[in-house]
Amino acid sequence: MDKYIMLINCRDSSNIIAKVTNFISDKTGNITYLDQHVDESQNVFFMRLEFEIENEDFSLSQFKSDFSSELSVKFKMNWSLYHSKEKLKMAIFVSKYDHCMYDLLGRYRSNELNVEIPFIVSNHADLKGIAENFEIPFYHIPVSKDNKIQAEEEQLKLLHKYHINFIVLARYMQIVTPKLINHYKYNIINIHHSFLPAFIGAKPYHSAFKRGVKIIGATSHYVTEELDAGPIIYQDVAHVSHTYSINDLILKGKDIEKIVLSNAVKLHAKRKVMVYNNKTVIFS
Amino acid sequence: MDKYIMLINCRDSSNIIAKVTNFISDKTGNITYLDQHVDESQNVFFMRLEFEIENEDFSLSQFKSDFSSELSVKFKMNWSLYHSKEKLKMAIFVSKYDHCMYDLLGRYRSNELNVEIPFIVSNHADLKGIAENFEIPFYHIPVSKDNKIQAEEEQLKLLHKYHINFIVLARYMQIVTPKLINHYKYNIINIHHSFLPAFIGAKPYHSAFKRGVKIIGATSHYVTEELDAGPIIYQDVAHVSHTYSINDLILKGKDIEKIVLSNAVKLHAKRKVMVYNNKTVIFS
Amino acid sequence: MDKYIMLINCRDSSNIIAKVTNFISDKTGNITYLDQHVDESQNVFFMRLEFEIENEDFSLSQFKSDFSSELSVKFKMNWSLYHSKEKLKMAIFVSKYDHCMYDLLGRYRSNELNVEIPFIVSNHADLKGIAENFEIPFYHIPVSKDNKIQAEEEQLKLLHKYHINFIVLARYMQIVTPKLINHYKYNIINIHHSFLPAFIGAKPYHSAFKRGVKIIGATSHYVTEELDAGPIIYQDVAHVSHTYSINDLILKGKDIEKIVLSNAVKLHAKRKVMVYNNKTVIFS
Amino acid sequence: MDKYIMLINCRDSSNIIAKVTNFISDKTGNITYLDQHVDESQNVFFMRLEFEIENEDFSLSQFKSDFSSELSVKFKMNWSLYHSKEKLKMAIFVSKYDHCMYDLLGRYRSNELNVEIPFIVSNHADLKGIAENFEIPFYHIPVSKDNKIQAEEEQLKLLHKYHINFIVLARYMQIVTPKLINHYKYNIINIHHSFLPAFIGAKPYHSAFKRGVKIIGATSHYVTEELDAGPIIYQDVAHVSHTYSINDLILKGKDIEKIVLSNAVKLHAKRKVMVYNNKTVIFS
Repeated sequence: MDKYIMLINCRDSSNIIAKVTNFISDKTGNITYLDQHVDESQNVFFMRLEFEIENEDFSLSQFKSDFSSELSVKFKMNWSLYHSKEKLKMAIFVSKYDHCMYDLLGRYRSNELNVEIPFIVSNHADLKGIAENFEIPFYHIPVSKDNKIQAEEEQLKLLHKYHINFIVLARYMQIVTPKLINHYKYNIINIHHSFLPAFIGAKPYHSAFKRGVKIIGATSHYVTEELDAGPIIYQDVAHVSHTYSINDLILKGKDIEKIVLSNAVKLHAKRKVMVYNNKTVIFS
Repeated sequence: MDKYIMLINCRDSSNIIAKVTNFISDKTGNITYLDQHVDESQNVFFMRLEFEIENEDFSLSQFKSDFSSELSVKFKMNWSLYHSKEKLKMAIFVSKYDHCMYDLLGRYRSNELNVEIPFIVSNHADLKGIAENFEIPFYHIPVSKDNKIQAEEEQLKLLHKYHINFIVLARYMQIVTPKLINHYKYNIINIHHSFLPAFIGAKPYHSAFKRGVKIIGATSHYVTEELDAGPIIYQDVAHVSHTYSINDLILKGKDIEKIVLSNAVKLHAKRKVMVYNNKTVIFS
Repeated sequence: MDKYIMLINCRDSSNIIAKVTNFISDKTGNITYLDQHVDESQNVFFMRLEFEIENEDFSLSQFKSDFSSELSVKFKMNWSLYHSKEKLKMAIFVSKYDHCMYDLLGRYRSNELNVEIPFIVSNHADLKGIAENFEIPFYHIPVSKDNKIQAEEEQLKLLHKYHINFIVLARYMQIVTPKLINHYKYNIINIHHSFLPAFIGAKPYHSAFKRGVKIIGATSHYVTEELDAGPIIYQDVAHVSHTYSINDLILKGKDIEKIVLSNAVKLHAKRKVMVYNNKTVIFS
Repeated sequence: MDKYIMLINCRDSSNIIAKVTNFISDKTGNITYLDQHVDESQNVFFMRLEFEIENEDFSLSQFKSDFSSELSVKFKMNWSLYHSKEKLKMAIFVSKYDHCMYDLLGRYRSNELNVEIPFIVSNHADLKGIAENFEIPFYHIPVSKDNKIQAEEEQLKLLHKYHINFIVLARYMQIVTPKLINHYKYNIINIHHSFLPAFIGAKPYHSAFKRGVKIIGATSHYVTEELDAGPIIYQDVAHVSHTYSINDLILKGKDIEKIVLSNAVKLHAKRKVMVYNNKTVIFS
């Protein structure tokens, strides 16, 4: 039995839900999950469906072309369709911090993440040993003021070679180039170590300490050209007090960062995220 | 434009979603919301829909009888249909504690709860003044060992007189009689002052203190004949420490109780709860 | 038996704890609580003590003058001493929103807050009825562009007449004048409806909606001349999702605001807060 | 400069704080931290101090014997004194689950835990590879019905050989023998995968699923002879819903278990925990 995941968004209009479910049903699909959302301030409709096909004569290409002509054109839909067994290929970019990378690789090894990780890339060699322990190819591509363009080219070559679908910046500490962002639009996930939009930019824990906040947080978001301003996927926080030094904040923060980043990766990998107007719809 | 809410559960089978959405669409309904769940361990399907009718010729009774003959009988569905403007009538049962009652009445006055509150009943007269401030009829029905049956009769008379749909035990402190429970099956909401199933029964904060827990909680659930064992609607918790005396736990707990109870009331009032096998499905 | 609370801060130096505890002990005081903190980045020492005096010959003024000459001058201490039964007098400033005021008054009536509330003042008459229900004098002082100075004068007169110690802005919606701020330095508590420093200024829930955050919050802080930038006393948050409209955010936010403001009031009333360098030390 | 940590508990009586601080001060100690607690229901006093010694002539043994004769005997104190650089030696017991062990070892490598880990022991060989990656000796001691006593003997030999101070059961899945418990009283930390006292015993996630709870949790506690009933050190929880299968609960629970266990280990390693009457005092 084949299982498919379908994502749709379009201008809201009358009875889209019934039309789509009817279409799938006519094509011998058995819908096993449906979640939908209407953004009333924008008048936009979002839907995520899962359906099963038992019919041996089912033609995916026929389904796609019929859906396009019968529904998608008419409602000007953005839509995508995945086989549930198609795992996304995910590249990890790291720098020197190991906690997020460790967390992702531990979950990867326990089959918690629905992805393949063909390689890890870093601008430093420090984490090579960990990658080797997990038997994942590690590429060291140093980045400096002078070699930015060349480094980006090497990264892009690797990404193409391994057919990477999305990138995770696991505390990568470098600003990603616009070219890479455009190649992987809404497919680069960053972890920022504050509850955005508070403390944008570098050293957020230092800023949190200075401001005397009683809560710190972390935010995973898609990378866009504006720094730390992309669509937010997941956030979490922890209570702190005046007794926390900057180092205590950093330590506490690491635990939040790990959880927040891995949650975002899971949501993305299960195709549960849609982006619209710089915001995300996160399906249940 | 009329708006309806529909709740369905039945044995899971192929393509129920499409069949129901198709039916509603044929009846000129525009589905604006759909959430569904399959309990795979029980093989049971649950769905909640909202749909709008603009058609002036729409006949609700025709819709119901057709739904019954075309779908409900075939799939052995349990289903219900509400006009979205029909407010449920809610009775509040209290004893001497005022915090949950205050919270509910404050929200009622701010139109936060989607209900009508025709009256408040109590086994003590202490909270009469508060009810009067909010201009809600208050009935004092003392309950003792000797008058249990008579008190229950008086309560039932009031409940019938005011056409009450559901009852909220806002720290009522009395065990409700089986007769009342059966009259209002899954329509009596209790707030228990612990994170059930920990600390069932009386004085849970004393038990929490004795056990030295680091987290306390509260649980709202439907009342069933077995004490504190009914389907859980909502729970929340708070961190505590060794510095909390029993009184501190009680004080902290009151804040959780209020929030938990009002959340359960809101979910129930919006028909977002279905009960199956002593558990709840809470729709989004 | 008399019980006293003492707060001290000064430049950190060797063995202040022992010197102070020794002094109190010599004066026949039995220390029942001590919490202390050193801000290592500023090299500042903070301490809060509670002690009991059973001795009938104890002279408070002697204690104070001896403490001053023997310790305070030498270590350049800022210190204060309160009898534990001295309740602070708190004025509530409101506008049209009632949820925070309701919450405070409910707790006041249940003796949860360790304060007296001599009056409530508002720039609108809307909440007069609630104040009357709680039998607290209510003053309506309209504020407009033209009468700002006069309104401030009226407020100050009331504050002096009732010997008010601190002011709570329970969603007061007006910017407090510098004159008032200086009269009540670190004695005006505001509730801001976001997790500061995110979303400073007006309409934070609208900004939160626009940014698509997955967590909203509230912050209670002392008012300083810079808007929403004073020392933070307490913060809390709640998870939200794309399904929340602005109104849903506002509704959810109200529950957080109430809890956060009442927590700040309790901490202040129990003299558990010290301010230094625009940050707070919150004693346990 | 030497730094010491001191823990004291005794029957509460007048001015113990001043007497102890005075004693330390007389011995040229500079107290840099003090936290204290009185359990009023038991009339027991608890205190944790940190102090520094710059004096080269300071004699630790003299300090101890004087403290004993001058204070400890008189007040019947239980007390202990540690040099802050003395790291506790911690053994990890595991079975087949790797998530808690991974988490502890990752933190160990990042110097987050204030301990030494001389070895890991397991009743299965599955996690040997991970231990080797972290370069920590791994002992495989199979446990069956027939060899329980012999296995315990081997464990005890290892524990003695490596001078182990405390044991962490990182999802060890075996019931520890009374002999071991007595050898390491309040020095064996277990992680139980529910918010105790709910769901004691095996398969708590299955029970949580069956009961339909909306919150799951984890509890770290000291092991005592009564199953899952020892003093609680740390607890945390996460919200769940009807959409969670048992496997989803297990997965979500793993994240809580890791955080809860590592928090308990950190508190124990920093000597911030005192046990009394089957409850813990956790110092700040």
